[in-house]
Amino acid sequence: SKRYTITLLPGDGIGPEIISVAKNVLNLTASLEGIDLRFQEMPMGGAALDLTGVPLPEETLLAAKQSDAVLLGAIGGYKWDANEKHLKPETGLLQLREGLKVFANLRPATVLPQLVDASTLKKEVAEGVDIMVVRELTGGIYFGKPRGFSKNENGEEIGFNTEVYAGYEVDRIARVAFETARKRQGRLCSVDKANVLEASMFWRKRVVAVSSEYPDVELSHMYVDNAAMQLVRYPKQFDTIVTNNIFGDILSDEASMITGSIGMLPSASLGESGPGVFEPIHGSAPDIAGQDKANPLATVLSAAMLLRYGLGEENAAKRIEAAVLATLDRGFRTGDIYSSGTKLVGCKEMGEEVLKSV
Amino acid sequence: SKRYTITLLPGDGIGPEIISVAKNVLNLTASLEGIDLRFQEMPMGGAALDLTGVPLPEETLLAAKQSDAVLLGAIGGYKWDANEKHLKPETGLLQLREGLKVFANLRPATVLPQLVDASTLKKEVAEGVDIMVVRELTGGIYFGKPRGFSKNENGEEIGFNTEVYAGYEVDRIARVAFETARKRQGRLCSVDKANVLEASMFWRKRVVAVSSEYPDVELSHMYVDNAAMQLVRYPKQFDTIVTNNIFGDILSDEASMITGSIGMLPSASLGESGPGVFEPIHGSAPDIAGQDKANPLATVLSAAMLLRYGLGEENAAKRIEAAVLATLDRGFRTGDIYSSGTKLVGCKEMGEEVLKSV
Ligand SMILES: CC(C)[C@H](C(=O)O)[C@@H](O)C(=O)O
Ligand SMILES: CC(C)[C@H](C(=O)O)[C@@H](O)C(=O)O
Repeated sequence: SKRYTITLLPGDGIGPEIISVAKNVLNLTASLEGIDLRFQEMPMGGAALDLTGVPLPEETLLAAKQSDAVLLGAIGGYKWDANEKHLKPETGLLQLREGLKVFANLRPATVLPQLVDASTLKKEVAEGVDIMVVRELTGGIYFGKPRGFSKNENGEEIGFNTEVYAGYEVDRIARVAFETARKRQGRLCSVDKANVLEASMFWRKRVVAVSSEYPDVELSHMYVDNAAMQLVRYPKQFDTIVTNNIFGDILSDEASMITGSIGMLPSASLGESGPGVFEPIHGSAPDIAGQDKANPLATVLSAAMLLRYGLGEENAAKRIEAAVLATLDRGFRTGDIYSSGTKLVGCKEMGEEVLKSV
Repeated sequence: SKRYTITLLPGDGIGPEIISVAKNVLNLTASLEGIDLRFQEMPMGGAALDLTGVPLPEETLLAAKQSDAVLLGAIGGYKWDANEKHLKPETGLLQLREGLKVFANLRPATVLPQLVDASTLKKEVAEGVDIMVVRELTGGIYFGKPRGFSKNENGEEIGFNTEVYAGYEVDRIARVAFETARKRQGRLCSVDKANVLEASMFWRKRVVAVSSEYPDVELSHMYVDNAAMQLVRYPKQFDTIVTNNIFGDILSDEASMITGSIGMLPSASLGESGPGVFEPIHGSAPDIAGQDKANPLATVLSAAMLLRYGLGEENAAKRIEAAVLATLDRGFRTGDIYSSGTKLVGCKEMGEEVLKSV
């Protein structure tokens, strides 16, 4: 049977609880599908800071590199918020993305029929929303140099960053986005601010050039401010969105909140080759950590993405996704997606119910 | 009686129609309040490009500088979208902001009780929303240098911009924001990405320093991705938001769409001294231009902001705002805010109805 090693990075806050559920679901699914999964758990984020003094220990990055895929819980918390930059949990996450060269971040924002009421948007606006945001993840202003603190020619203190994209960076994320759109409804909207920023004009030019390889995909362009509006006004107009690192950070979070159920949303971060990173889009929720209240389903669905995009195990991925839907259909809900008439359960019990449906 | 000169910049698309309505409302209001208003109309945007070859002719900027306030319609349109940067209508707008040094952009996002159904958000989420976004308007990545196209050390083509803030730029926009919050509910949320960007860490440090001058205002901080979510999840949590140029561009548009009635929303752009620029937040809507369908109320309310913030004529400002509310109460609606049971009118007729209520 096929053998894979999965690196588990539980991280902080609710991370350990949700990773534990996802691991159980992966284990059962693997045994039913004849897949041999080995797990290695490593410290990262605030947990790693407390243990080793850095947010991404070398051993963690090395273990991740040598494994077939990485499943991450969540990182960060009030405790480390005031840390200097190189000692922030978030810096560990950026180092992991950079170290594994996972430049393509896929963030689905899907409104499940079972959960349409969870959205703050009117039912007729929210229902049927099914957007995939393809966010560039290892370039742009997140990593651009020069950056830092300095003085300008008048001796005034300044803080600065560089938004920069090289041609190959735009081309490769565009290809991932066109391929993704092709497998969906065939419509790709590239979001930029090309009416103001040179980096965006360059982005648009390269995306247009790559589009000639995908005549079957319909390409459109939208300014980022308009995209932020259109997601609220009429989210169903979007199929696949591709955008840079910082705009993708903002828009994917906005899109996820439009579904009303961010406790349900997974993500995949992929490179050209090598292990991908799979994680829920929600944060570490320190306020409910350790209370068995977290919704583990985003992490369970991230495990499904891991099987699909990370290991090519489509059947196993589908088995997990079906189990999640069946569990919702049987009425089980954690607090974040609870509505009257459904059955309120904690993190562990939700995990056990999913196992019954796998 | 007090004398002021107003520069009218109708611009493109629906610009001329809505400016014409606002001018009539200003004229009547001025005569009732004993104010002497002179108007000078100048070309700008695509209209100026067609006429003079540049989006902001020197004469227009000079006239604006010498006047007491600027009322702008809207700029841009498909016709000029493919223009080179220095020949884009948008570039004219950026030159106007820079030329008049209007660094503080006030963008209210208010859900009027009469229009709560226009929002795509559920009634209980939308009703009572009253947010003021204070956007930095003449700095950051919009104006930062170096910028442009080049090659990196591997000979790869790149496009790049610089996000940069000097201390005095953050301090002065922070002061405007604290003053604004003080006149509202006394809560200011500064939005940044200080977990990743040095420019944001610097921003946050300076905002915190300025906050000691405003002990009566409650300051909080939020990451921009979270702010994009929270605006959808629970917009009523916000009173005043202060943020940089690009985040403000995105978030103010998102906030405005949350009201569901962007045809109603005005804005003010103010400097330390000198004339401010007042304009609706919506665009030039080329698809409905010249069809007498546009909603002139955002421009009429921008004229009210002009009277309040630009000329210090509070009574006149209130007179216009009351007239707009009375017109809505009498049931008149343009297409964008129409709902069954109300009276559908065009741009001109809406203007005439407002005049009756002034
Ligand atoms: C934690 C933070 C550095 C990160 C980001 O901005 O990329 C997060 O917001 C995300 O979107 O994964
Ligand atoms: C037209 C464009 C340059 C402008 C901006 O980005 O500032 C507009 O979107 C706005 O918000 O006023």
